[in-house]
Amino acid sequence: MGPAEVAAGAALAAQQGARVLLFGPAEQMGAPAEGVELVDAPVSIAKSADPARAVRSTPESSIVQATRAMAEGRAHALVCAGGTGAALAAGLFNIKRARGVHRPALALPLPVPGRPVTLLDVGANAQARSEHLVQFAFMGAAFASAVLGVRRPRVGLLSNGEERERGNELVVQACTALLQHAEEGRLSFVGNVEGGDLVTGVADVIVTDGFTGNVALKLMEGVSQTMLRAVRDAAMASWRGKLGGALLRPSLRAFREDIDPEGHGGAYLLGLRQLAVVPHGRFSREGFARAILRAQRGAMEDVVGATHLALERAEILRRVPASADPASLRDSI
Amino acid sequence: MGPAEVAAGAALAAQQGARVLLFGPAEQMGAPAEGVELVDAPVSIAKSADPARAVRSTPESSIVQATRAMAEGRAHALVCAGGTGAALAAGLFNIKRARGVHRPALALPLPVPGRPVTLLDVGANAQARSEHLVQFAFMGAAFASAVLGVRRPRVGLLSNGEERERGNELVVQACTALLQHAEEGRLSFVGNVEGGDLVTGVADVIVTDGFTGNVALKLMEGVSQTMLRAVRDAAMASWRGKLGGALLRPSLRAFREDIDPEGHGGAYLLGLRQLAVVPHGRFSREGFARAILRAQRGAMEDVVGATHLALERAEILRRVPASADPASLRDSI
Repeated sequence: MGPAEVAAGAALAAQQGARVLLFGPAEQMGAPAEGVELVDAPVSIAKSADPARAVRSTPESSIVQATRAMAEGRAHALVCAGGTGAALAAGLFNIKRARGVHRPALALPLPVPGRPVTLLDVGANAQARSEHLVQFAFMGAAFASAVLGVRRPRVGLLSNGEERERGNELVVQACTALLQHAEEGRLSFVGNVEGGDLVTGVADVIVTDGFTGNVALKLMEGVSQTMLRAVRDAAMASWRGKLGGALLRPSLRAFREDIDPEGHGGAYLLGLRQLAVVPHGRFSREGFARAILRAQRGAMEDVVGATHLALERAEILRRVPASADPASLRDSI
Repeated sequence: MGPAEVAAGAALAAQQGARVLLFGPAEQMGAPAEGVELVDAPVSIAKSADPARAVRSTPESSIVQATRAMAEGRAHALVCAGGTGAALAAGLFNIKRARGVHRPALALPLPVPGRPVTLLDVGANAQARSEHLVQFAFMGAAFASAVLGVRRPRVGLLSNGEERERGNELVVQACTALLQHAEEGRLSFVGNVEGGDLVTGVADVIVTDGFTGNVALKLMEGVSQTMLRAVRDAAMASWRGKLGGALLRPSLRAFREDIDPEGHGGAYLLGLRQLAVVPHGRFSREGFARAILRAQRGAMEDVVGATHLALERAEILRRVPASADPASLRDSI
């Protein structure tokens, strides 16, 4: 997704009513469309190996300028085309963690047939504690409700079996706490779910630690790409295959649309004081526009406020001030 | 896989040179084929919710009789059609952990195109320590070499990124230890691999804890079934689709054989004093015969001895006697 494609996505979103403040290389982005205000910011830290350091040392970069604009109240949601590492680092630095949130989490609405299944955390924190997972459950539910429009989202906890006593220590602890919240009516918790349930739709939100979530996400991508490639190779291997593939294609269209990764805007960084969306680097202008419109919806529906309210009602807000925790950036991607 | 199918699988394996001692309901299994000795054992604990207790309370069950026959030297490898839970419980009870092994692990040769990728642990221990993962690496390599015939298997450690500092605490510790073993020439360790690498073939053996491995395994099954179903549904949706599917089928045959889960015999329980194989409950007689032949090969190639030697050379044998560890059965499936 080059700067020109990003600018085209911004234009598309503006046509659909979004007001966009665009930070990027003006030279490659061309004249801004109506509804888009362009701020020239030619420096990118998207490819940095150490995003946290790059954020501190490169205040002129587009992502740092964009997050600073949010801190100053000039924008209300972030869409970052430069990858999750930079978005997380700049988000923690300028937007900051929401009050009472232990750790931000990266949530991805998985493009599965039917309605999306939001998996979180897919990689913001490799190491988690059970109180993190419990917050993720409420954060994910508030997100699915406000941004994806799912009514009373059903939340599952990813484990190696459905029984409540299954799982590693982290999951067993989190399951006990979540069952308590469910019993007291604060969360629609369906219990432990297994790996295969990421595609069955038994839950709208599936909670896991960032290590397992990242492994699962990359595995899904790998398996589906391998299978699509095998079908495509078979369809190119002979004239019979070519003809077969061509005949099958129209019937497969609905499925391909269902599993279109651009359909849900990308990954969402939850737990900051404002919403941040990270569309995938391979997205087209349409996917990028979708990300902007979803971010706008999140801001208008006040996903951050709804999350805070849910955490407050469940009495699981963090008590120590966020700034006192030196680990806040340690596990970032 | 009913008793008659199991007996047919045993007959097939016997035709190919295996000597089979078969424990099961004689009434449903019929007269044994040549090379098969049938011991009537009509009681099954395959469906038990608490296999460890069932093993102790049901000495007449087929799996307990079979593992006792192994303890008495009347058989040299186990093939269990009754599921991993019963096999693990009866294996720990009668075959016992191999000397110096912390925990047994369940290894599954994943049917990916090219040559199999053996993933372990896929669910014997939900909670692991880094010294377990280090042993799993050597156990998996010895298995791939002796049973699958892979020369100098390349071992990877499953993580959320390739860099050695990525991962949760468990993985970072295990990676450091494995890199040391690689440097000293004891293991062909390729470093951290990501979820997608389970299907790319960058490693022959991929090591993880039983929680992550189980989630990954069930996710792979779920994603591939969902995709195959979508293609099948598309191929049934219209006459065009039907024709297309029929034309495409021959070209897809090689791929379908590559990803046939029966191809590699099932899951292998490593770390006991003898090898145990657990074919999937959905296997046909051919898959079951394959499991028997692979088990025979494992016994003839002395996978247990090779594993012990590798662990001994790497100086990572466990020092405390296995019987002193009350946790040995706790995390079993």
